[in-house]
Amino acid sequence: MRTLKLTIAYDGTRYAGWQRQDRHQTSDIRRQKCNKPTIQGTLEEVLRRILQEPVTVVGSGRTDAGVHALAQVAHVRTRSRLACERLLRSVNALLPQDIAVTAVDEADEAFHARFTACRKQYRYRLFTAPVVPPFIRPYVHHVRTPLNLALMRRELATLKGRQDFRAFARAGRHTSGTTQRLITGIELRRDGQEIQLDIEGNGFLHTMVRSIAGTLLDVGRGRLPPGTVRRMLQTGDRRLAGTTAPARGLALVSVEYP
Amino acid sequence: MRTLKLTIAYDGTRYAGWQRQDRHQTSDIRRQKCNKPTIQGTLEEVLRRILQEPVTVVGSGRTDAGVHALAQVAHVRTRSRLACERLLRSVNALLPQDIAVTAVDEADEAFHARFTACRKQYRYRLFTAPVVPPFIRPYVHHVRTPLNLALMRRELATLKGRQDFRAFARAGRHTSGTTQRLITGIELRRDGQEIQLDIEGNGFLHTMVRSIAGTLLDVGRGRLPPGTVRRMLQTGDRRLAGTTAPARGLALVSVEYP
Repeated sequence: MRTLKLTIAYDGTRYAGWQRQDRHQTSDIRRQKCNKPTIQGTLEEVLRRILQEPVTVVGSGRTDAGVHALAQVAHVRTRSRLACERLLRSVNALLPQDIAVTAVDEADEAFHARFTACRKQYRYRLFTAPVVPPFIRPYVHHVRTPLNLALMRRELATLKGRQDFRAFARAGRHTSGTTQRLITGIELRRDGQEIQLDIEGNGFLHTMVRSIAGTLLDVGRGRLPPGTVRRMLQTGDRRLAGTTAPARGLALVSVEYP
Repeated sequence: MRTLKLTIAYDGTRYAGWQRQDRHQTSDIRRQKCNKPTIQGTLEEVLRRILQEPVTVVGSGRTDAGVHALAQVAHVRTRSRLACERLLRSVNALLPQDIAVTAVDEADEAFHARFTACRKQYRYRLFTAPVVPPFIRPYVHHVRTPLNLALMRRELATLKGRQDFRAFARAGRHTSGTTQRLITGIELRRDGQEIQLDIEGNGFLHTMVRSIAGTLLDVGRGRLPPGTVRRMLQTGDRRLAGTTAPARGLALVSVEYP
């Protein structure tokens, strides 16, 4: 058995997210979403055809419906002896235009895309001009109200370090396990009409980055009082949070391994 | 009558180009292309609905099928008294996602988007990594062969100045009028895995930029001998040219007026 590490870029717009949907487990409410393909499911189907055996593609983590990735990482275990370079070409020839495998590498048997990941970087993109150019429309959240960047920067400083982020997680998930996470870097940058929130940590709870982005945004446009982030961290009270920012603005930038 | 100046960004992928197709004039060969919408036709249709009168949108020039624009400029003459800001919002609310009007400005009566344009900038984007990320796929020409950039730079130096560019124009057009054009700037830049050809001049013949890009590319990968550009300029012989580079890599960057 070989273990292969895959690096994957995707435009998440028309997908129901990373994770393959198991039709038997989904409730009626989710049925509609199920008609959309998933990134994992699409990759597995293409790899199955090339490797001539069923494969499971294990990602570093899920990305939600509509979220993008510049370099998601996943692994597969296979009996195939196909050279990495040939696999790369074949996979991309069969994948739809909005998913690309950018690298295939031999990995150690012990490599596990999820369990051995030690750091992840996400970027949330806001666009502030009156009109969004068509080229970036699927990748930014359009904000028309003026933003107080200084206020947002002061707010985000509180997020650094190891803390309990349950107030930023969607309810109903993470009922088991810790809601503590370590944020190693967080930065808000202006680049012309675009504002980028870069956040880096050892892992993220479900919708955590979008909840952070949404809360900072609501503080920045005066809908929430300064100090909201601090109170959320102290109390763990999700009801204090701002509106979860839309998926289109979010991208998984990179995943690091030891 | 008011004259309005429109600045327009578009993803040309699914369009038959800028120019409205006149069904009566098109030959059978062109019928298939006619089923695709045009940028001009789409803008005129939306403006007619908002301004409640037929309008002609006069662009700074045509862009071919599949070519993009970051800031195409056009003008319209209208009796409507609608404020520019309201027009901007209404137009973008009705336009498809791949066209955006980024500015509407009052212009002088004498302003003519085509006749008064004094300078245009185009960019041709090449991408050289083995795999193209999905986000830029519609906007770059993927080149897998190694390129000799130094050779390409030496080649393009010959293009500067006022010269007869008929060897770079598609045959059958420009039968009337001069084929002399002034190139004021041309540069080849590497930005990571991307190579950008920036070219600026007082005007361009039909497919001229793509023909220049394709010829430079063929010199850079050794399919054409160095000095090809010089010989094309001297002889006016189109048969010496490289393969016209595909439309997807080209974008009209800006149009300047006195």
